[in-house]
Parts: sequence; C-alpha cells; structure tokens
Amino acid sequence: MTVNSVPSPVRIVASDSINQPPRTAELEELYRGFERELLIPLWTEIGDLMPLVPTPKAMPHLWRWNQLLQLAARAGDLVPVGRGGERRAIALANPGLGGLPYATPTLWAAIQYLRPGEVAPEHRHSQNAFRFVIEGEGVWTVVDGDPVEMRRGDLLLTPGWHWHGHHNQAVRPMAWLDGLDIPLARSIDATFFEFGSDVVSNNDTPRFSRAERLWAHPGLRPLSEERSTPSSPLSAYRWEHTDSALAAQLELEDEGLSGVVGPGHAAVRFTHPGTGEDVMPSLRAEFHRIRSSAKTRKRREVGSSVWQVFEGEGTVTVGEHEWAIARGDLFVVPSWQPMQLRGGSQLDMFMFSDAPLFERLGYDRIEIE
Amino acid sequence: MTVNSVPSPVRIVASDSINQPPRTAELEELYRGFERELLIPLWTEIGDLMPLVPTPKAMPHLWRWNQLLQLAARAGDLVPVGRGGERRAIALANPGLGGLPYATPTLWAAIQYLRPGEVAPEHRHSQNAFRFVIEGEGVWTVVDGDPVEMRRGDLLLTPGWHWHGHHNQAVRPMAWLDGLDIPLARSIDATFFEFGSDVVSNNDTPRFSRAERLWAHPGLRPLSEERSTPSSPLSAYRWEHTDSALAAQLELEDEGLSGVVGPGHAAVRFTHPGTGEDVMPSLRAEFHRIRSSAKTRKRREVGSSVWQVFEGEGTVTVGEHEWAIARGDLFVVPSWQPMQLRGGSQLDMFMFSDAPLFERLGYDRIEIE
Amino acid sequence: MTVNSVPSPVRIVASDSINQPPRTAELEELYRGFERELLIPLWTEIGDLMPLVPTPKAMPHLWRWNQLLQLAARAGDLVPVGRGGERRAIALANPGLGGLPYATPTLWAAIQYLRPGEVAPEHRHSQNAFRFVIEGEGVWTVVDGDPVEMRRGDLLLTPGWHWHGHHNQAVRPMAWLDGLDIPLARSIDATFFEFGSDVVSNNDTPRFSRAERLWAHPGLRPLSEERSTPSSPLSAYRWEHTDSALAAQLELEDEGLSGVVGPGHAAVRFTHPGTGEDVMPSLRAEFHRIRSSAKTRKRREVGSSVWQVFEGEGTVTVGEHEWAIARGDLFVVPSWQPMQLRGGSQLDMFMFSDAPLFERLGYDRIEIE
Amino acid sequence: MTVNSVPSPVRIVASDSINQPPRTAELEELYRGFERELLIPLWTEIGDLMPLVPTPKAMPHLWRWNQLLQLAARAGDLVPVGRGGERRAIALANPGLGGLPYATPTLWAAIQYLRPGEVAPEHRHSQNAFRFVIEGEGVWTVVDGDPVEMRRGDLLLTPGWHWHGHHNQAVRPMAWLDGLDIPLARSIDATFFEFGSDVVSNNDTPRFSRAERLWAHPGLRPLSEERSTPSSPLSAYRWEHTDSALAAQLELEDEGLSGVVGPGHAAVRFTHPGTGEDVMPSLRAEFHRIRSSAKTRKRREVGSSVWQVFEGEGTVTVGEHEWAIARGDLFVVPSWQPMQLRGGSQLDMFMFSDAPLFERLGYDRIEIE
Repeated sequence: MTVNSVPSPVRIVASDSINQPPRTAELEELYRGFERELLIPLWTEIGDLMPLVPTPKAMPHLWRWNQLLQLAARAGDLVPVGRGGERRAIALANPGLGGLPYATPTLWAAIQYLRPGEVAPEHRHSQNAFRFVIEGEGVWTVVDGDPVEMRRGDLLLTPGWHWHGHHNQAVRPMAWLDGLDIPLARSIDATFFEFGSDVVSNNDTPRFSRAERLWAHPGLRPLSEERSTPSSPLSAYRWEHTDSALAAQLELEDEGLSGVVGPGHAAVRFTHPGTGEDVMPSLRAEFHRIRSSAKTRKRREVGSSVWQVFEGEGTVTVGEHEWAIARGDLFVVPSWQPMQLRGGSQLDMFMFSDAPLFERLGYDRIEIE
Repeated sequence: MTVNSVPSPVRIVASDSINQPPRTAELEELYRGFERELLIPLWTEIGDLMPLVPTPKAMPHLWRWNQLLQLAARAGDLVPVGRGGERRAIALANPGLGGLPYATPTLWAAIQYLRPGEVAPEHRHSQNAFRFVIEGEGVWTVVDGDPVEMRRGDLLLTPGWHWHGHHNQAVRPMAWLDGLDIPLARSIDATFFEFGSDVVSNNDTPRFSRAERLWAHPGLRPLSEERSTPSSPLSAYRWEHTDSALAAQLELEDEGLSGVVGPGHAAVRFTHPGTGEDVMPSLRAEFHRIRSSAKTRKRREVGSSVWQVFEGEGTVTVGEHEWAIARGDLFVVPSWQPMQLRGGSQLDMFMFSDAPLFERLGYDRIEIE
Repeated sequence: MTVNSVPSPVRIVASDSINQPPRTAELEELYRGFERELLIPLWTEIGDLMPLVPTPKAMPHLWRWNQLLQLAARAGDLVPVGRGGERRAIALANPGLGGLPYATPTLWAAIQYLRPGEVAPEHRHSQNAFRFVIEGEGVWTVVDGDPVEMRRGDLLLTPGWHWHGHHNQAVRPMAWLDGLDIPLARSIDATFFEFGSDVVSNNDTPRFSRAERLWAHPGLRPLSEERSTPSSPLSAYRWEHTDSALAAQLELEDEGLSGVVGPGHAAVRFTHPGTGEDVMPSLRAEFHRIRSSAKTRKRREVGSSVWQVFEGEGTVTVGEHEWAIARGDLFVVPSWQPMQLRGGSQLDMFMFSDAPLFERLGYDRIEIE
Repeated sequence: MTVNSVPSPVRIVASDSINQPPRTAELEELYRGFERELLIPLWTEIGDLMPLVPTPKAMPHLWRWNQLLQLAARAGDLVPVGRGGERRAIALANPGLGGLPYATPTLWAAIQYLRPGEVAPEHRHSQNAFRFVIEGEGVWTVVDGDPVEMRRGDLLLTPGWHWHGHHNQAVRPMAWLDGLDIPLARSIDATFFEFGSDVVSNNDTPRFSRAERLWAHPGLRPLSEERSTPSSPLSAYRWEHTDSALAAQLELEDEGLSGVVGPGHAAVRFTHPGTGEDVMPSLRAEFHRIRSSAKTRKRREVGSSVWQVFEGEGTVTVGEHEWAIARGDLFVVPSWQPMQLRGGSQLDMFMFSDAPLFERLGYDRIEIE
C-alpha cells in the first residue's frame, strides 16, 4: 500500500510582532533545530491556529443560476457521462479555499446535468449525498435498486455506502443541485468508493419509490423495518409535502397561532422519520419561506451552509456582502458570518449545512440578533 | 468584521489520462468559463476527491523523545512563557501536511515545557485539550479554579471552554505531552478563544483536585452533580488507577479468565464517569500494555491517532514503516494505516485519537487481521 | 395529608407441599412472630411470586362491540356527562383481575359515548390517553386549546398532563375507544389530576388541528418546535395515512418487494415524529392488516395488549381461546400468551400495548413460532 | 398452557354521593347489564382510579433491625436452606398492601440469613436483585461463575437473568439486606425463573471478583468489554469507595467548596460505570451521610423507596410519622410522601428506590421544600 503524500519541509516564520522572543542568533538556531525535527512552536502560530472567533478562509460568495446552467449545458455538449468521470457535476469552488472544489471546508455543492437517454453509472461511496431539484423532471435516481423519480422541489437522498446511479428518461435535459460532505470526508480521511454497474440496476420509472411507499406516511413506521439506520430510509422528500408544511405555518400565523419560526418566516427541517434526527449524520437540510417584505432575524452560527433560491426573489446579506437573489441562485454562508434574508416576492429557499457535525461534537454556537 | 482570506483563482488541470474528454479548443474554452465562474468539474478531480480507500496526506512518522526534550529545554532558556504566546508548547508537524503544525488532520500534539516558578497564563478556548505526563512532577494545572497536580502517568483534562493555566511549584523543569483537536476545530471554523488571568486563579497545591474528590470513586456519582456535561468532569485520571487496571487484566489472563483485549495485550479507555462515553466529544484516550514478546493484532481503522511510549521498549509497524521505540517516543498513525505493536520489554503505551468524531458521524470502520 | 389505606394483617399460609419445613410448634411460633413484625418468608411464597414463566391473572377475553354499543347508548339515556364523573366511559373489566376496571394490569380500555350537543369537561392528568375511532364523526377533542376532529379510523392523542375535553357538534351520538395507562399509573402511585374548564376552551371545528398542520408532513419538522417532548406532538393520526401505508405494504408484496412484516400481513406503528419512538412513553399503538386467508405468525411477548377489529372479520387465538371476530370487537392478550390472527375477509386491526414499559426496563422478550 | 386465574365477578358499587346519576331502577338495570358484560363505568370509579395526587396504599412503616435479626436467627434454627425455598429470606410486608410480602408496590426487601457452611443454591430470574451488607462477612455470592465476597457496607448486584448462589465460608452466620423489583415484575407479568446448580459453581473465595478487577477503576473501561449491558457489569461496590466519596464531600464543604447535596448532607448514587445510568434499569441505589445535627431538605417524589440505617442514629419523618432510627433499622417511603432525615450522630443511610421506572416513563416529579 502506498500513501500519496510527499514529505514537506517545516518552516518557522516568526514575525517581529508583539509577544515574540527577540530574534537572536540563538533563537534562529533553535528554530532550525525545530525544523529539522519537524516541530513548530505554538507561540509563533497561535494567532492563526486559535483565533478569538472563527476566521473562516471560505468567503461569502454568490453563484448565478443562469451562468451555471449555461455552462452545464455546454458541458452537456462536450463532456460525455460515464465510468471514470462518473458524473457531469460542476462544483462551486469557494474563492477563499485556494482553488479547491469546495463550497465550504465541509460541503461540496454542484450542478449536475444529464441529457435525454444518458446514464450516470452506479457507484457507492462513504460520503453522504443528496440531490435537490430546482427545475425539470424525467430523471430517476436508483438507490440500492430502488428507482426514485426526481421532480421539481424534491429532496432525494443517497446516504453513505448506498449504491446509486441516475438515468434520464425524458426528452429534455435535466439539471439539479448535488450536495455532499466530500470536503469533510476528504479532510478527515474517511473516503471509500466502489464502482458498480455501468447501467442502472433497475430501469423501472415508478412515480413513487419503494422507500416512500414504506416511509412517507406521517408518524407511521413500517413494522418490517423496526431497526433504525444512521441515515434516513426515506429517499425522497416530495415538494408537495414541503410546500404544504410551509403554507400551513404561514396560515397559522395569519390565524394568530404559533408555528412560524419568526414573523413572516416559515421553516422546516428534513428529518429521519425513524429517529427525528437530521437526514444524514453529517448533513442538515431545511427549507425556508419568507413572505414578501418580511425578513429573517439576523443570525450567525458555527458551521457553514449553502443556500439556493427555489422560487421568488429577495435580498440576502452575508457578513458584509449583500446580494439581490433570484430563482436558482446559490450562495455560501461561512462559519460565524451573520446572515439575513429579506423577501422581495415570497421567497422560497432550500439550504443545507454541516450543523449535525457541530452539534454531535458539542461545538455548536448560535447568536441571534 | 473582516474575514482573513483573499480570493484565490480557480484552475482546472485536466490530465490526458483515461476517462477524460478530448482536450479540444472548445473544451478549453469551457474550462476557462468554469474558472471565471469559480466552478470545478467533478470529472477532473474525482480520483483525488473520492479515492477508493482513504489516502491520507498525513504520513506515519516517529519523533524521538530525547530530541524533543533537548529542544524544549533549549526553548526554556530562550523563550519566555507569558501572555500572547500563552504556552511553551512545541508541536509535532506531520511531514505530509505541508508544513502545518499538525500531527494529523484532526490532532495537535506537543511537548510543553515549564521551568521552576513559571506560570502559563489562564485562558479558555473551544478546542478540547488534555495533558499526559511522561515524567516529572510539581506542576499544577488550574481548571476553572480547581488546582490539579500533574504527576507521572496521569491524564489531565481541560475540555473546551474551561479556563486553565499552569504553574510550576517545583525546583526542576517539567515537560509533558499536550493533545488537542486544534486542526479539526481550525478546519471546520469552530475556534473561540478568550484570555483570562495572567497568573493562575488559585495557588493551592493540593494532592487531589476537587473534581477527583467528587468523581474519582468507581461507579459512584455525586448527587450534587446530577446533570451530565458533554465532557468528563473528572479532570485527572491518576496513574495508580490506570496501572492497576492494566495489571489486573494481565493477572486475569494468567488465571485463565477473560479480560485482556488480546493475548498479552491489556487495554483501557479513559471515559466520562457520568456517561461512559469518551472523555471529550472529539477525543479518545486509551492506555495499552503489551507483555514482553507479545504483539497486538494488526489493525487499521478510519481516523488517526498519536501514540507515546510511557515505559518499556518494543517495535511498532505503521503502514510500511517499522520502528524500534523506547520511553517517550511519539508516533502517528494516519487513517486506515495498518498498525501493530510488539513488546520488547513490557511495553506501556498511551494513545489518543479522533475516533469519537467518526463514530458520531457513522464514518467509523475497523479491520482487524 | 392523609393516606387512604388501612393496615392489613399479615398471614403466612404455609402449605404442606414439598420443600417446606415440617410444621412443628416451633415453626408455627416463628411464623406468628413474623406476622407480628409484618414479615413474610420467601420460602412459602416463592412459587407465586417468582413463577418459571409469567402467570398473568388477567385472562384472555373478548367483548362484542354490539353489546358495548347498546349498553353505552343506554347509558347515554340515563347518565349525564359532566364535572365529577367527567366522561361517559365504560371500561373493560378483565375477569381475572378481581373486579377491577382494568383490561390488563397496565391498560385501561373503554367505550366512550357522547350525544349531540354534549360536552365532556376539560381536565388533565398524569395518565397518558388516546382515542381510536371505530365509527362516527362530529366530535372534536380539544387538546391544550387545539380542537382536533375525530373521524373514523383516526388515532387521537392526549398525552399526560395535557388539558383536554370533548364536545359533540353533530346530530348523532358518537362512540369511540379510549385507551389509557390508568392501571399502571395507579399501581405505581403516579396519579395526578386537575380539573379545568367545564366547557371546552375552544369551540372551533376545524378539519385539521394546529398540531397536524405543524407536524403531519412526512419527514418534516417545524423549526419553531425544535425541542422534542416525551410524547408525540402530533395529536391526530388520520385514517387516510394509516390506510395508504398498509395498502402500500401489500402492493409491495404483490410486486415481490419487501415491506410486509409477514406473508399477507401489513403493519405500522404510530410514532412520535420528532423522535421515532412510541407515541407516548408507556403506550404503543399499531395498526395491522391481514389479507383474506392469511394468518400472522404465532407470537408471544412479555406485556399485554388490547386489540380492536376496525373492519372485516376473521379469527383470533389467544392462549387456549379461539374467537371469531368482527367489526368493533375487542379482546385482550395477557402477558406471554401466544396470539395469532387469521383473516376471513381482509382484516383490519387496531392494537395498543404496554410494550415501551418493558423495553425501557430491559424486560422485553418475544417468541415467534 | 394454563393460566392460574379464576374469573371474578364484576360489581358496580355506586355511591349516592355527588355527581352520580340518581339510582333509578333503570340505572340499576343498566349496571347489571354492565356487570354481565364485564364492564365498569368510569363515573363510579374515577375518584379512586384517578385521584388528584398519589394516594398510595403502601404506608410509611419502620422495621427494627434487632427484631428482624432475632427472627432470622430463629429461622436459621428451624428452616433449612435449599432447592425449592431457594433462600432463607424474610420480606418486609407493608401493612397497607393487603398482606402481600411487598415493601412497596414495586419493591421487595428482605433480610437474608445464612449459617456457616450453608449454600443457597444457584438460580436466575428476570427480576433485578442486589444485596447490601449491614454487618458480618464470610459469604461469597457467585454471579455467573464469578465469586464476589460480601463485606460490611458493600453493595452487590445480581441483575436480571444472571445466575447466582451464595455460600457461607465463615464460622459465624451472616445476615444482609436483599432488594429486588419482585412486586413490579409480578404486577406487570414479566417473571421468568430458572433453577441452576444445587451448589455454587465456583468455590473460590477471592478478595475481589473478576468483575471488580475489570471495572472498579474510576473512569476506566476495559477495552475487552466495549459493548454496554443494560445493567451494571460491576457486581460489587465496596464500602471503602462509598465511604471515601462521602467523606470527601463533607471535607469539600468544610473547605467552602461545593460538593454536598445540601448543608451537612453528602450523597452518592451507585451507577453503571459503562453508561453512568442507574445500576439496574428498574432500581436506583444511593448512600447518604448526614452530619450530626444536620437535616436533609424535606422532599417528596413520585415513586417509593426503602431506607436502611447503616451506622449512627437520628430521626426520620415520613408523611405524618416520625421515628428515632438506629443501626440496621429499615423504613419505607411511599410515593409522594414528604420525607426528611436528621442526624443525631453522623447518620449513614443506604437507600434503594424505583426512580428509574418513573424517569424512563416521564412520570417523575419532585418537590423540595
């Protein structure tokens, strides 16, 4: 077995700033000794390693859907889908992350594009994945042999180590958002991958997957699946349920009853129906609806998130940035950056984040203005 | 608020290797479009992002205690301890991690050195920390005002957001191992830090801390602390308990009773006495004792660890490396690298790892030969 | 405060059976001494106290719905509903339980009857309660101010310490099944009760309760209710969901896919949508559908249950009893009694049990033939 | 299979009190109809079934140790120990519980007496059991083949379905307290019992059991037993640990540090070292030390408990009762009865209760004055 790293030299860059010992010849000799032995003192690094508050390298950034879609369509012309490349997926590369294809230090987000008749071959990997459909239809994702239709507004899960492939049965191309925890898994060296069938293992095109037929009944658990899995067994969260849950919260608000998370702000979290926890151990997914002219409370929390406009238009501020946003636009909220949404029209937002990671490690913190 | 990153350009480096589309002018134009829009396709990156098995950049490496101690003592001569630098701690810099002061992608490990009369000022941070004492005595670490004496073989905890400082009341310098989850907290942007008193808030030098007096009684919980905390409330795990637990396992083996984890291999995990879980949410700590001429089963697991010889000598193999090891030596086991210990003499090993992170995310995997 | 018990004498009834000491005068004197000091030896009692397998005093028994309904209607003529009596509820009294109004040692089951315009006044109690509607409509149960319509096939929850009252807005009387853990709460002395409003606190008659509008969306959790409660916040489980979940399982079986719990046997458990656990900490509720001519596997488990035929007809065996059953019939399965259902027609069965009590105490055991 | 019950008639005893319908002939006829069909209305029973606060039938009561010990010694003369009777155990029969051998509705408490050379044969049962040693030594209890010495002040566990027998290797008789959840298991029909060896399966008389050698190290878990069991694997909680934990709390109080549960009142709970939960799923065990002249806060809680004076003398009030108590005396606290202890001398109290049952069902309530 080989390990794909090469040894890197250690260099101690001691500034002349406050709190550093005077740079004498003896100190320099000590530092050279550290370098030879692959050692780095804390006192030269502490400001960067242990800042007073999170100083994420990831930057707030916005990607326009139109641009993404045009480039994805062009890739559809030029780049075939198949074994090896596996997916025609084009990832958001956060400008603060040194050219890596990461939306944030933990999250990967991409537009995936599949033309009529194309097949993305089956594989499985330890990374957790989902798709969220901003528009189009006609693709089925096949999860452990169970075909799941993808329709506008749906959230579709392929949790870690589940086989999955996609095929487009429609006459038009289809594009959607892929979300995964690739950066997290890569950075902690937890990546496993296995190739499967070159074609999907089940060509059926049912309207509802077996998983939904078993699990998409509110508050009901099939007795045949009594033992809980770490990730949700419900592979599809359909738009009609999400939409009606959000609509109901706003109606309750209209009637003077509690239910919204804030004035004019309805929100649901997608959950594991067998445990009530997040859909996958490392990923949270939510949907937010902000009324026209309403705004969310300004809020910052430890951990990062990716947001996509599903419908409507409005404004978002992230840190010192402010953007007008419209259908399909995607933006990133780095850790501890204050964020606020305002509805121009009624604004429907899908979001996913790494919050479960922080909660499970006791690292979660939230500040709401 | 400012964010300390600068935008980085995106560059798509498409190899000519198998499974890549032909490098036509049109493709190059598409790739330039991706770069302008801060996008990176999956198909050029997948091999590196999603390898078949973990391919850690961190490398197996060994640091010799004598070298560390000499350099630490020299630092004692040249570098004062105080506010700003905070600690005279010198960290292991894994040669695969690009010159960062990280033992592994999640773990920070350092030798800390404190001369007679010196004080490491109080601070607190979100990162979880512990000390393990390979030799010496006479330092007290003060945790939230509770003085905890540090003695050879002890494990001392300062979980996230607990105030702590150290002061040396002895006539000789003292050195020990510091372990933290700094790299993890840094990479996921969960770092908070606060300065406290420049001197320790409590100068008492009791033999046992208040925490131990309340919690270090086997199977007994003080009723005054009925609610459990995420991290262990027991700030000191004393050598005499660890030693007698390990000795008992080997005696049971001698008597033909079960108790060891493998032939000639005794092992205990340090746990939260109120929950039985790991001492801190992101860190596992264990102690292993291997009889002379015995060996552990070869084993690899997802996640990384740092090991230190407490006493004795023997041999360790990590991946393709093999080292003779002796008192104080430290080595690193990257993710998914097979590891095996052999006792020359009876071999006593302290280790810490990031295993709880993987278990809490469902990413844990173990293979034992 | 007074305690409503009177001291009872202790009498030791020592049989001449095997394993008893010879009944000498000295022994008799010893036994009189025990009695004076309120002591009873184990050796005279062990067979009854600690039998080899559970020997429930509760007996398998069947109640016919027609009989219940007739008597309930007659009670409607003669017995008013109001403060003091609280409910026109008529409980199943297991013939093995000494004339107590208990279906089993832990479960209370009753038919409740409410005539047009009647109001069952509001109260709350520590006991957990639910209603299951076998027929009729037009009653709203008001739970903590939230009106919940009761319709055929619905399961309605009023968990411990929630205010609740009922009022009939229809032109016809309505009857339903009440299930509570009254015997358990009484036997362990955990009973609290408080009177509320004499009329229901909310006269609205919405088709869906606020609780449903927030919670009855599969796999979706309202962000405004992030903290989980011990009991389900979903106060109504509607028949259309239960029916379609069961139908889907049988369709999956027709298609050769897994999903049923056994051949021709579909089943769902009603669960807390925020945790996936049972609807209330002491009560399990399930719905079973057995195809015509199919039968369930014979099964016995520790703990007791009450079953009601919702629709269809068939046969049930409980221990040595066998009954033909039809719509509305109720029967009791005592602890450790083997039970099996056979469908005459398609047979739809509601059941509730005390299984969570046993699982939470580690007392659960199941045997399936 | 036969069930040991006989059908009992149902009788409706309707008082003329307030809120009852007028006792007309028609009502009487209705009630006779109820009785024929084994039905009992709620409105005649509700006051007894669902009182405003718990009205336990169990009464506060005190048993004097001297009386128990004399009678137990006399039983030692007259009643042999062996298969069938199983144990020379003499149970407290609460005067409110109708002559049943129950200390409370859930708890069984007995003095067990074993003469030199005697053997209590091995058996196992689903009921959870422990022994607490008020005086004497020389008996070993053998738990699943592991001999556990019983010494003054020790708590020894035999959780449900573990084989266990006892044998006296000393020259003097020994007596101790047995505590079990027999009444609970009997009332919910969860009783299983199996006979084992007539002699103990292991005659060794080690000072420490294998269980202790593995588990009685504070905050340390043997890696060979990584999976947790429902009950504590630590079969002996030794007096020296309990004593030093209590002493430490009072010393902390003397030093002005927190640690006691109230002024002059130290207390520990015996816990499962692998989970921090109660020693067994249905039983809590604690030890309390009250300084001379100190008193505990008056407190009442749902659930019942049995207390024994281990050492010292003082006063206890339970409900309206007040007793002077001395070494070995036992008393019972029924549900929701206020209880308070005062130290005459320093007062050491062992107690066990059914609190985990209430906590696991969400039925727990506590009121402290």
